[in-house]
Parts: sequence; structure tokens; C-alpha cells
Amino acid sequence: MEGLLGNVDARNLALATDLYELTMAAAYYNSDCHHTKGIFEMFVRKLPRKRSYLVTCGLEQALYFLMNVRFNEEELSYLKSLEVFKYVGEDFFEYLGNFKFTGTVWAVPEGTILFPNEPIIRIEAPIIEAQIVETYLLSMINFQSLIASKASRIVTAAKGKSIIEFGSRRAHGPQAALLAARASYIAGCAGTSNALAGYKFGIPIFGTSAHSLIMSFEKEVEAFKQFKKIFPSGYLLVDTYDTIAAIKKIIKSGINTAGIRLDSGDLYYLSVEARSLLDSAPGGDYANTKIMASGDLNEYQIHDLLNRGAPIDTFGVGTELSTSRDDPAMNGVYKLVAIKEPSSALCNNEEEVEERIIYKIKTSSGKRSYPGPKQVYRIFENGLIKNDLIKLENEDKPVNSLPLLEKIFDNGEILLKMSSIKEIQRFHLHQIKTLPPKFLDLDFIPETFPVSYSKQLEVKNREFEPQ
Amino acid sequence: MEGLLGNVDARNLALATDLYELTMAAAYYNSDCHHTKGIFEMFVRKLPRKRSYLVTCGLEQALYFLMNVRFNEEELSYLKSLEVFKYVGEDFFEYLGNFKFTGTVWAVPEGTILFPNEPIIRIEAPIIEAQIVETYLLSMINFQSLIASKASRIVTAAKGKSIIEFGSRRAHGPQAALLAARASYIAGCAGTSNALAGYKFGIPIFGTSAHSLIMSFEKEVEAFKQFKKIFPSGYLLVDTYDTIAAIKKIIKSGINTAGIRLDSGDLYYLSVEARSLLDSAPGGDYANTKIMASGDLNEYQIHDLLNRGAPIDTFGVGTELSTSRDDPAMNGVYKLVAIKEPSSALCNNEEEVEERIIYKIKTSSGKRSYPGPKQVYRIFENGLIKNDLIKLENEDKPVNSLPLLEKIFDNGEILLKMSSIKEIQRFHLHQIKTLPPKFLDLDFIPETFPVSYSKQLEVKNREFEPQ
Repeated sequence: MEGLLGNVDARNLALATDLYELTMAAAYYNSDCHHTKGIFEMFVRKLPRKRSYLVTCGLEQALYFLMNVRFNEEELSYLKSLEVFKYVGEDFFEYLGNFKFTGTVWAVPEGTILFPNEPIIRIEAPIIEAQIVETYLLSMINFQSLIASKASRIVTAAKGKSIIEFGSRRAHGPQAALLAARASYIAGCAGTSNALAGYKFGIPIFGTSAHSLIMSFEKEVEAFKQFKKIFPSGYLLVDTYDTIAAIKKIIKSGINTAGIRLDSGDLYYLSVEARSLLDSAPGGDYANTKIMASGDLNEYQIHDLLNRGAPIDTFGVGTELSTSRDDPAMNGVYKLVAIKEPSSALCNNEEEVEERIIYKIKTSSGKRSYPGPKQVYRIFENGLIKNDLIKLENEDKPVNSLPLLEKIFDNGEILLKMSSIKEIQRFHLHQIKTLPPKFLDLDFIPETFPVSYSKQLEVKNREFEPQ
Repeated sequence: MEGLLGNVDARNLALATDLYELTMAAAYYNSDCHHTKGIFEMFVRKLPRKRSYLVTCGLEQALYFLMNVRFNEEELSYLKSLEVFKYVGEDFFEYLGNFKFTGTVWAVPEGTILFPNEPIIRIEAPIIEAQIVETYLLSMINFQSLIASKASRIVTAAKGKSIIEFGSRRAHGPQAALLAARASYIAGCAGTSNALAGYKFGIPIFGTSAHSLIMSFEKEVEAFKQFKKIFPSGYLLVDTYDTIAAIKKIIKSGINTAGIRLDSGDLYYLSVEARSLLDSAPGGDYANTKIMASGDLNEYQIHDLLNRGAPIDTFGVGTELSTSRDDPAMNGVYKLVAIKEPSSALCNNEEEVEERIIYKIKTSSGKRSYPGPKQVYRIFENGLIKNDLIKLENEDKPVNSLPLLEKIFDNGEILLKMSSIKEIQRFHLHQIKTLPPKFLDLDFIPETFPVSYSKQLEVKNREFEPQ
């Protein structure tokens, strides 16, 4: 199961949370409302700067968490030792000792394109359970969606040229490096430099050499020759000392190479010069030698290089991608939209319990959201997204629309077989084709998104307006 | 050992690397220069935007990695299955099967203040070993140093008021959340909301409740009362519906509370109003009630709020801190500065081998660095940093100077007992007192840093100038 879902750290999952999820859990437990079910939705209020759409990602790891979250004895002893839990009875910790997630979950598939305020995931579970899982779900889905959304822009800018994710060393720790590689691949990158991402997720991995290899030999050309002995199809890094001189040496020494990598300097000038040297080499031996470029690239630079006709075949993108450097936070939130309570008259007869649903909404200034459990219906025109209609989940499905949220967990049991990462990537690349072209313009910032709400939802929403 | 060092994911450490570290390793192995030692230094070329100093962090996890990095059978099978390694002999994978780190390491203690181009860590090891560990060390030290450097600014802005790190849900995945909590605490935060950081590292953890708790009760005041039953010293979140009305309800209902938390709206106005309501409550019952503020805060907003006299006692800082939002990348690099080769005449007599050291430097455009293994000597004046002098490690120590790099690993054996996280925090807070005050101005961007190089280093450097 771990292999299937590709989780990265199965230990101490339960404590990877904000403490307040646990104090709230204790308060729910103590006030006897832990039979109450909570319905929570995760959505993004506002996209990162310059983004015109969101690519959802991280669901697989989120589901792995839901299936495996448990508290062990040592963790419970730690919690009990805390001053804050001094007045919390032993029975709550016994409850945590038996804790597992038994809820029902709807989510949009990974790789889906969404807009602000559209639910990514909806969870209906005993309110303690739904609360305890909040922080982990948010950190996992926020981060991978952040990177997938950035990667999608970079892939668009590359107009069919390959992008390799190169950012492990600047990612926010080794786990972030791994997850960034996953999210980047889903959004259309050709691969990653991260070997663990290859091992865990089956993502194609790429890598040749760094300057240190070249420098460890007395002569640059000697390093090239030694490297080629065992990596005949490897690319040669040519900018350690003097890029143009290195390319000339390769040609002069007749070192056969599939590609060269430029990692500094004026990439436009150097790629043009390099292509010219390679193409004019005697015998046409270097006509098929590819040019890879790297070095603090982002979507704008790639767009600009290709626009000017730089003959670059592959881009390695590091820091800007693995940290989503221009805006490194996806502000996904997880909000209570309803509670379901056992109808009090029937409370003692669990077999026949009826539930009443009470819609909820927070009205804090600047942070409004719509109440009630929702579904998103996507309506297409000529194969392109025309409009997303958000309705309460119990309303009728509009004709010719595609519901985006699927039920994936039923009372704690997973319902679907996970897609392979290649299938998820294919799904995302199909999604991209459904975006109206203006959304693929790197500078397009929509004033409004193609999202509307059902009448019933607007009515419910008005009931919560301050009087 | 894991507990001592607080590592977070001990599995598959070796593959948490860029593939090119492994292809380079194979090239070194194949060219018989794996007896050659490489000396690598990690340093930061350019600080993140607006930073005037760097706070080093992440060494403990880096050392844990160096002690534990191994390749298992399954990982080796994966590598052997890759097309790229098709021409690499079985003996290299046997070498990896027996791989462990046997090098010698110097580093500055965690929490040290450094400036650009000063070595954070220096590694001398058989060149394959030094190469393979590069990516993990960079991602771990880059990230924690990034967050510690950001946190240090926020702590400075808070002028003695407490900062609690609140950013787990926006951190770059659950491991980044944990590491961000650690780095923030080291830089002077009072604690974190991350429960795992409390469990793993002993960091004080804080948390009260979210809006969902309040909303799950029919009346806000009922939620407050239920919460107070088991958390008598907990803070009450007052902005779910109407902040001022909530505070009035608390006072009117006589709910005793140690503190309230404001999480939205105009924090200056609300904190002033709240303080006034609390202070004028009958009987002085709320005179000691503290005010906590949170909601997308950063160092500038905190500075501004306190400057205007906002009566806020504690700040919760989330996204801006855990992602270092204004600049989310620390550009630390790991560069070969020298190689040591067995002197060829003696190569067969391993007992008496003499080594010759050859200084190295990369001259790629815009990416120059100084050659040779270095030490940083800090010189103080009236208790403040006057100047850092960088010298070759075999030069004399300047009088009245403090060498910053300490030997912490000797031929694969750890030399020191790790400090507790509290001790590291204390060390950093002392370091901050040695900074000339202008460096603590949030807007100070140094044109030059107080760093100079020894004459001998300048001479060596000139030998590498392009002719």
C-alpha cells in the first residue's frame, strides 16, 4: 500500500498537525458532540500571484494519510504530559488510542484545473475525525497544488520543449524536493533530477554531471572523455571555464555526445553560438547534438528565449519551480460548511437514527464563504470550459455538465484504484486543452473567473448575511 | 540516535539526491580517481531579498544524514535497472552497497550569523562520498537557514513580544512544516503550533481553537464555555462572527479567560478596542487577559502595529514565516575548492601515502568563488562584529579572533555532543547581540558586508583569473 500510494513518511503522521486540532478534538469529545458529523470543504480563496488557474495535486498522499493515521502509545504519553491537557480526562486519550478515520470523502481528481472557491476535497466525518486530519491534508494538498500550478505555467511557456525539474537542492527540505518532483511531473514536466522520485513514483529521472566532476580532472576534455566512457548518451556540461572553448574542444577531440548543457551566461547568445558550432562541425557529426539550458530559469525567461528563437531543446528548471518562487504559498483553507446531528428524539436508537443537517458559515471580515456541502458542475462549449456552476450537493445535476467531485472514500473505505502517475499527467494535459486559450497567457489575470453559484446556494448564503 | 538528532525520515536517505551525483560517482569510480579526496564548501552567494544576514540552521539533520546514509538492495536494483547506468559495471553498485560516509567535516554551529560567501560547512572526503551527499545537505541546510533567517527578522520586529510559528498548513508539506517549526524556534520564536515539533524536538507548542469549533455550537458563547471547561488557561478565538460583540459576550457572561485571539480585520483597531473593553470590565477581572493576533502577519506589519502602540502581547505568524514568503529560496551552493591526491610515487604504500593538495575554482561567468579550504575568523570591537576575515585553513589565526568553523566529524566519526534546541536558541540570541544595530533595521540592505579575504587567498584567487 505504501508503494502504491508513494507515501514518504509513514511514522508519526497523527502528530503532524497543529495542536489546536487536538485541543478542539478534546473539547468536542468533552461536550458530547463527538457523535455530531462535520462536513468540511477545502478550497483556495485567492490564487497565488499571476496564476489564472489552479492545478490540484497531492490527493494520493492525502488519502494514504487518511487510511493510516493512528496515535501510538509514545505519542499519547507525550500529549498527556503537556500542561495544556491537564484537565482533559483519560477517556479522551483512550479515544485517540483507538482513533482511525471513518469518514466519507469526495474530491476532484489530481491534475484537475480549478478556480478560486471551488472545493478540492469535501470530508464528512465525525467532527473530531474531520478536525484532526485538517493540518496534514492542507499542507500536503496546498504544497503539491502550488507546485503543479507553477509547473503547468512553465510547461506552457516551453511550447512542447521538455522541462526537467531540477530544484531538489532549493526545495524546502528533502520531502518537499520529492513532492515537488511529483507535482511537476503531473503538470507536464518530462522528468526530474530527483532519484527518489524515480524510485518511489516511477518518474523518469535525468542527470549528467556538475562542475565538480569537470574540475576534479586536470583538463576539461579529459573529464568529458572519462564521463563518456560509461555514459555514452549523457550530456556534457560545458560552462565550467569557457563555454564556447569547451564546445570547440569537444568537436576538435571528436567526442561524440548526445547533448550539451549550458548552465550560466547569456543563454540566448550561447545557444545560438553553440548550435552554429555544432551544425558546422565537419562530417555533420554534431547535427543531432541537443542543447539543454539551465540556471535560475522561470516561465518568463523560457518564453522569451523561445520567442527570440533560441535553439534550446530542453530546459532544466530548479529553484523557481521547486519553491514556486514568485509566490510560494497556496492559501487553501478547510472550512466547516455544515454539521449533521442525530435527531434528538431518536438519539438512543442508533439503527434508525435520522440526521438533520445544519448549514454553517464563518462571517469574519474579508473571509466569507458559501455554506453547505457543494458540488462543482463543469459546462463545456466547443470542448472548452464555458462555466463552472457550484450547487448544493443535493440539487439536480445540470444537463450536459460534468460533476468534478467524485466520492473516493466511503465510511473509511477507499473506493477507487489509484491512477498511475503517467495517467494523472495525461489527465492534466487533457484538462489544459479545455482551458480557454487566454488562461494560458502568462500575464492574464482574470478579473472574474468562469464560476457561478446556484440560486439555492445564493439564497442560503443570504440567510447568513449580518442583519 | 534518531531521537537525539530528531531526524524526520530515515528511510531512503541515499536516493534523496539528484541523479547526477550518482552518475558523477560512477564516473569517478570508473576513472580510478575515487581515492582522490574532494574538499567541498557550502556557502550562500547572495542572500534572499532584504536580508542583511544569514542564520545557519539544519546542521543536526545534515549530520544525522551523514551518519546514516546507506543504499539498500532494493534501491540498488532500481538504479541498475535504469537505462542511464547500462554501461556501468557491477563493481560500482557493489561499492554503493558498502557505501558509508567516512569524511571529515567542519561547520559553523547552528544559529550562527553569517554573511554571503562565508563557508557554512566544509567537507573533506573521498570525492565520491563528498559528491553523493551534496543534494541532501543543500536541501536541508538551505531550507532551515532560510526559515531561521526570516524568523530572526520577525523576532526582531516583535521587540520582545512573543512570536508563535503557526504556518504548518502552508509549509511545503508535512516535513517542511516540522523543519520550519524547528528553525523558527532556533531563531527566537517562543514556540510553534506543530505538535510533531513538540514531540520530536521538545519545542513548546501552542494552540487553542479554530472557527470550526465555535461554529459547531449553536451559540458562540456556548462554545467558549465548553472549551473553558477543559482548557481553563486556553485563549478564546473571538472573530468568528463579530469580534467586538464576542468580547462583550465573554465579559457579560463572566467567562474567565487568560487570553483572546484576533484572527482577521483591522488588528490595530480591534486590539485597541479589545484592550479598552477588557480593562474597563467590572472588577478588573480581565485586566490580565492577553491579546494574541494572527492572520497573514509578517515582520513589517508587526513592526507597524507595535510602532503605533497596538496592545498586542503575542503574535501568531504562519504562511509568511513557514514559506519565507517574500523570498522562499536560500541559494546555498556546494563547491569543490580543492582535491587531495595520493602523491603518485607513494601510491602503492597506503600506510605512508603523502597527499598533494590542488586548489580548484569554477570560473563560469557570474559564478566565481575563492579556491582552497577556508576558515572564517570573526573579529569583534566593543562586543560587536567588526569584520570577518576569511583565510586559507592552513594560515595563522589572527590575534583576538574567533574561528567560526569547528571540526565536527573526523573520518566518519562524530566528535561533538549535539546541543539541545534550547541551547541553540540561546546561542543564536547571543549572536544577534553581536550584530551592529543597523543590521537589525528591517530595511537595511548592506552595500558591502564586513567580510574580507587574506592576502594569500587573494593571491591564490588571481592565479585562476582568465589570462
